[in-house]
Amino acid sequence: MSDSLADSLFLKALRREPVHRTPMWMMRQAGRYLPEYRQTRERAGSFLVLAKTPELACEVTLQPLRRFRLDAAILFSDILIIPDAMGLGLGFETGEGPVFARPVRSAADIRNLPGLDPVSDIRYVMDAVTLIRRELPADIPLIGFAGSPWTVATYMIEGRGSKDFRLAKGLLYSEPEAAGELMNHLADITADYLLAQVEAGANALMIFDTWGGVLTPDHYRKFSLESLQRITDRVRSKAPEIPVILFSKGCAAHLEALAETGCQGLGVDWTLNIGEARKRVGEKVALQGNLDPVVLNAGPEAIRAEAAKVIESFGPHPGHIFNLGHGINPAVPPDHVRVLVEAVEEFSRKPEKGSPANGV
Amino acid sequence: MSDSLADSLFLKALRREPVHRTPMWMMRQAGRYLPEYRQTRERAGSFLVLAKTPELACEVTLQPLRRFRLDAAILFSDILIIPDAMGLGLGFETGEGPVFARPVRSAADIRNLPGLDPVSDIRYVMDAVTLIRRELPADIPLIGFAGSPWTVATYMIEGRGSKDFRLAKGLLYSEPEAAGELMNHLADITADYLLAQVEAGANALMIFDTWGGVLTPDHYRKFSLESLQRITDRVRSKAPEIPVILFSKGCAAHLEALAETGCQGLGVDWTLNIGEARKRVGEKVALQGNLDPVVLNAGPEAIRAEAAKVIESFGPHPGHIFNLGHGINPAVPPDHVRVLVEAVEEFSRKPEKGSPANGV
Repeated sequence: MSDSLADSLFLKALRREPVHRTPMWMMRQAGRYLPEYRQTRERAGSFLVLAKTPELACEVTLQPLRRFRLDAAILFSDILIIPDAMGLGLGFETGEGPVFARPVRSAADIRNLPGLDPVSDIRYVMDAVTLIRRELPADIPLIGFAGSPWTVATYMIEGRGSKDFRLAKGLLYSEPEAAGELMNHLADITADYLLAQVEAGANALMIFDTWGGVLTPDHYRKFSLESLQRITDRVRSKAPEIPVILFSKGCAAHLEALAETGCQGLGVDWTLNIGEARKRVGEKVALQGNLDPVVLNAGPEAIRAEAAKVIESFGPHPGHIFNLGHGINPAVPPDHVRVLVEAVEEFSRKPEKGSPANGV
Repeated sequence: MSDSLADSLFLKALRREPVHRTPMWMMRQAGRYLPEYRQTRERAGSFLVLAKTPELACEVTLQPLRRFRLDAAILFSDILIIPDAMGLGLGFETGEGPVFARPVRSAADIRNLPGLDPVSDIRYVMDAVTLIRRELPADIPLIGFAGSPWTVATYMIEGRGSKDFRLAKGLLYSEPEAAGELMNHLADITADYLLAQVEAGANALMIFDTWGGVLTPDHYRKFSLESLQRITDRVRSKAPEIPVILFSKGCAAHLEALAETGCQGLGVDWTLNIGEARKRVGEKVALQGNLDPVVLNAGPEAIRAEAAKVIESFGPHPGHIFNLGHGINPAVPPDHVRVLVEAVEEFSRKPEKGSPANGV
């Protein structure tokens, strides 16, 4: 096997080319379920120091790849880095998650938001990307990422995580024009941020629309899908060779519309069968997913059975990247990940060219 | 206008008979957004005392009907009353929500769960129902309710609310047989509980499957839909005249399957257009929904515009009960509810028989 990106199973699957086994990686694969991550995190002192120190971000990005045969690395960072760089004052309160000191609550707040030059204003992410790309095996692609404008805006408006998104959704109803400006502003910054990651060494891009699923269909189209389209257009015009994966969690209803954006791949959560998703999007895009992450907390038997179901559901078509339907959770024993990686390889391996189909 | 249930717009709409305007009620209409509710709640001392004292439960059930022209009342109670009566030790921690002292974590725990005779073991609910029915205007139906077995089980297993339902979903993967027994056990108790409410005076029934949407399609069918079917069958065989409404939040993908259960109505959250939902279920069931509850926090203009959209989306067909797509939230100003009630009446009113279609 050669060791260049030309042979990357992940990139081939994204282009919907045939592969001899289904490539896989896991959302949040660099994370708290790994003891070595917890150690580095402790050494850093805080999550933000970890994310903002290129050497440490590089170290935790590589950790899961040293343990498991994963087919892609993803930059260790956070979707709230952009509003932090805009001066909203990001902090993490214990047991509370991210909190912004200066949330955005009105049309005036939106119009006062600064612009951003990602290359200079978020230098540490670009440095981390370059460092990771240098340290990674040459045949393993590095995924750069950002949050979707709507998802990032929910935190900017609420000031923290939310259950009902009363303030963020409220702004869409009461100030639709200013809300639209916010999404456009964030979309343009996000596109530049992603392009800067490409410039620094990222080989593919992913956009996480974690909270698209809390919107009405009208608002989803207007405030989330449109801004995803805007980013995808801008990235495609500047870096047409870089594949983009969109992941709108809880948005099974909008799969066809997402496939029309011109992206190369769509993330699929666990609430729909990936085989049905494949039929619905046809030949348009590759699909990434969709094991229920909680399966990894169950025993090896359940892990193997459920992995087999996902692979069978997708069927013998090109264009599948195995992944979880959401991030891996901190309580997963690392050994369970090994069981999954081996199961995906075992159940998806195609007979070698020239070998008998039923050969032993 | 007569004052008997025969003329109830809510019951007519549930039977998909023509009505001169769209009936409406609101999930959690007896709740914290009302100052008189907060007063009664304070007088009770705790939420559980409020729910377990028939006179107080009756009082808060009636409060929203004194303020607004709503077309149905719903029993004030809680979906966790059943596991509380099974001895799990329900408490409410400040800022934390419901907590069970003795959660159900294993197959052995499940097999040790007691049976329940709702009439004697949850007497206070039946007393509340009888009292409310006596105090309610004769033409206003009273809706009895329960949680779905899956939704109730999530709290029994997790011991509290959850974000990822790791323990509850984990049990479905690791102990599918015992989990199936738990759902059957809860379904039978829930059916008896609902039938006891009918016996006590309830005129319609609703089952809240708040967490059905966190399951894979396979698990949804096996652990949530099947138990909803089991309840619906049992209620229909004993009380065929009582309409049943099923509400599986976040389950737009399963609408057709839910319509096949033999229920009379389906709740529809705000993540799909109710007009599309109507086309998908055809002539099978009435639909109840689906205004985004956050609209009520916005101003009168947004409330009127969004109410009009829901009514237009459903179109001039029989079988619509206007409602929110989820419970009303505590921050809604009561005056905004009045705006909504008036808007629904204005936008849904059909010309009187014999009056000119374009008359002034």
